[in-house]
Amino acid sequence: MNIVVQKFGGSSVADTDKIKLIAEKIQKRVLQGNKLIVVVSAMGKTTDNLLKLAKEISAKPDPRELDMLLTTGEQISISLLAIALNQLNIRSKSLNAFQAEIMTTGDFNEARIKNIKSQKIFDLLEEFDVITIAGFQGVNEEGDLTTLGRGGSDTSAVALAAALHAPCEIYSDVDGIYTCDPRLHPTAKKLKYVTYDEMLEMASLGAKVLHSRSVEIAKKFDITLYCAATFSEEEGSYIVKENIEQPVVTGLSVMDNQTQVTLSHLPEDYTLIHKIFHNVAEEGLNVDMISVIDDDASLTVSFSIIDESKEDVETALHHSLKDLEKWNISYHPGYSKLSIVGVGMRSSSGVASKFFGALQEIPIKLVTTSEIKISCLMETSFKQKAVESLTKEFDL
Amino acid sequence: MNIVVQKFGGSSVADTDKIKLIAEKIQKRVLQGNKLIVVVSAMGKTTDNLLKLAKEISAKPDPRELDMLLTTGEQISISLLAIALNQLNIRSKSLNAFQAEIMTTGDFNEARIKNIKSQKIFDLLEEFDVITIAGFQGVNEEGDLTTLGRGGSDTSAVALAAALHAPCEIYSDVDGIYTCDPRLHPTAKKLKYVTYDEMLEMASLGAKVLHSRSVEIAKKFDITLYCAATFSEEEGSYIVKENIEQPVVTGLSVMDNQTQVTLSHLPEDYTLIHKIFHNVAEEGLNVDMISVIDDDASLTVSFSIIDESKEDVETALHHSLKDLEKWNISYHPGYSKLSIVGVGMRSSSGVASKFFGALQEIPIKLVTTSEIKISCLMETSFKQKAVESLTKEFDL
Repeated sequence: MNIVVQKFGGSSVADTDKIKLIAEKIQKRVLQGNKLIVVVSAMGKTTDNLLKLAKEISAKPDPRELDMLLTTGEQISISLLAIALNQLNIRSKSLNAFQAEIMTTGDFNEARIKNIKSQKIFDLLEEFDVITIAGFQGVNEEGDLTTLGRGGSDTSAVALAAALHAPCEIYSDVDGIYTCDPRLHPTAKKLKYVTYDEMLEMASLGAKVLHSRSVEIAKKFDITLYCAATFSEEEGSYIVKENIEQPVVTGLSVMDNQTQVTLSHLPEDYTLIHKIFHNVAEEGLNVDMISVIDDDASLTVSFSIIDESKEDVETALHHSLKDLEKWNISYHPGYSKLSIVGVGMRSSSGVASKFFGALQEIPIKLVTTSEIKISCLMETSFKQKAVESLTKEFDL
Repeated sequence: MNIVVQKFGGSSVADTDKIKLIAEKIQKRVLQGNKLIVVVSAMGKTTDNLLKLAKEISAKPDPRELDMLLTTGEQISISLLAIALNQLNIRSKSLNAFQAEIMTTGDFNEARIKNIKSQKIFDLLEEFDVITIAGFQGVNEEGDLTTLGRGGSDTSAVALAAALHAPCEIYSDVDGIYTCDPRLHPTAKKLKYVTYDEMLEMASLGAKVLHSRSVEIAKKFDITLYCAATFSEEEGSYIVKENIEQPVVTGLSVMDNQTQVTLSHLPEDYTLIHKIFHNVAEEGLNVDMISVIDDDASLTVSFSIIDESKEDVETALHHSLKDLEKWNISYHPGYSKLSIVGVGMRSSSGVASKFFGALQEIPIKLVTTSEIKISCLMETSFKQKAVESLTKEFDL
């Protein structure tokens, strides 16, 4: 059986006309001899609208009941798509999380998939050509409905592909993975191939094509992912294990609304650093770039957060430092973070040199590096100039 | 455990403000020491809107997928109500058909409940004070979602009451059962007690408080039903096995838009009558009153249908009679049907005499009777006069 998993995002199923178009797209693949598992998100703004109803009733809705509510969105999409497919005489059946037996952990609103009973799906594919399956949802051991958190439908699709040993195609309004955001750099090139590791760095850096968790699962089970635009015949991008013709730098990603927080004149006490980041984590805040420099018996710690976390970070830091006598703190909101990513960096020297060379006219506020990534922070007014220099330098 | 089953209709949960009001109403009962099973319908026009989406895709949506779609409506209501209850610190949990294990036959769009695993619900009631359960839906043997057809949420509620040996309270925008429609006869009296049999005759006659199927189940399992208005403290009506202070006639019901069809000069051939009603049933049409009179070697058949079935009935009759030589047919649309109902008729004589006496100035087109009911058909222009005469005669 030639099984393919396809996933369509919420904007691809925003209305019944689009659902009919997707049914026709699926029909072509069925006529080519494929059996399809189709994961769909909730239609357009459905999830937002359901969340709004819950918030009208409670500022903090019971998490178990919130998942019970939100899972209806995908059930609406899969049944409408199955109606559209049956209308085209394609043998099709929809399955919600109970029926597809997508078993998850018990954490409501952010459950993780533990197991999918693939035999039932294989059996159904003997009788049906297309099974539409509700994304974003699962069932925990107690039989409660759970949801998988942000990007959950991507995760559902890739987990199903892993369970069925099938490739996975992700369709959205983005037509592939680019070396750089085309809105920032119009001549950015679409990548035909990108590796899992690069995609993981890029996804968390703001290239919002695929959610990181789905890429992690694809990497773990070696699933070939393909990303393309729903309503286009143009070729998209493949996410693969290794890229034979690997350029040194594959992509450039940009995130705005960054605040740099710098603590200086701290005593040379590393338990203090633990305390600082522990208190920040307790507030549920995500710290991104972190740099610590120990300079002549005094520590300087600098890190970036998103602008809207600033007040909460202030609270956490005040709490951490209140017993100290001498320290200095500064906040700089409105910065941008630029990163270059490439698996080729691992085996290539001089990338940092080229990077700083391209940015020599720009005041860089903070730099961090990983094996396959270099990130820097700068005032947003320099962003466009930096994008142009870096795309030119690395031929992106 | 002092368990009560409550059911709230779609207009009672039309928006989040109403859901919050219902939660407060439920809270009072919990504070009185009750454990509650609360069945809710889909919010306001939700089911209609979902049906509209399906019809945009297919004129005849796949029945299995249509049920998958429609069941989301009640899942939205039960989770929102559980959110509202938890917000009031009432220990509450929602269950859809999978979780409540409401097992049905396999007939999509009109399934019948076969079995409810009550032990799971009893167990949950040890931990929770209120379980909200999705009405209108069930699961068939193949694990597909099914719906119970028109009035399905009433059926769910009464079936749960039967499974849990609990009384059942049905809340809607109607505040009880009246001797006659108060819009037709403003001094109509609310009945405190009405029997199952009377209710069965009245429900199918247009007193749209409770669906017949739910009353049938209540009768079978001897469940006390109570009907009242959702947002009112006024006492409603009880539907019970026997009414000790039984008046002869309990109620008067009225249905407009009736067409009388009369076939005359038919040969005295009863296989023909079977053929006529068989062909009418094949078209999926409901025939209501039927009268057959055999007069001197020629048959006259007269029956009533709703006005909008007229064309389909014409087709069916043409098909039945096309081989006959001599016959006559007449259609009279726009009639009204009036019925008086009362279990007391069984043991009381002279009811028919009083009935015809009250209506002696009105041209009656057709009369049929049952053990506890007399119905007649007349031009709608006489309806108001007939209602006044009958309510006066029988003190309704």
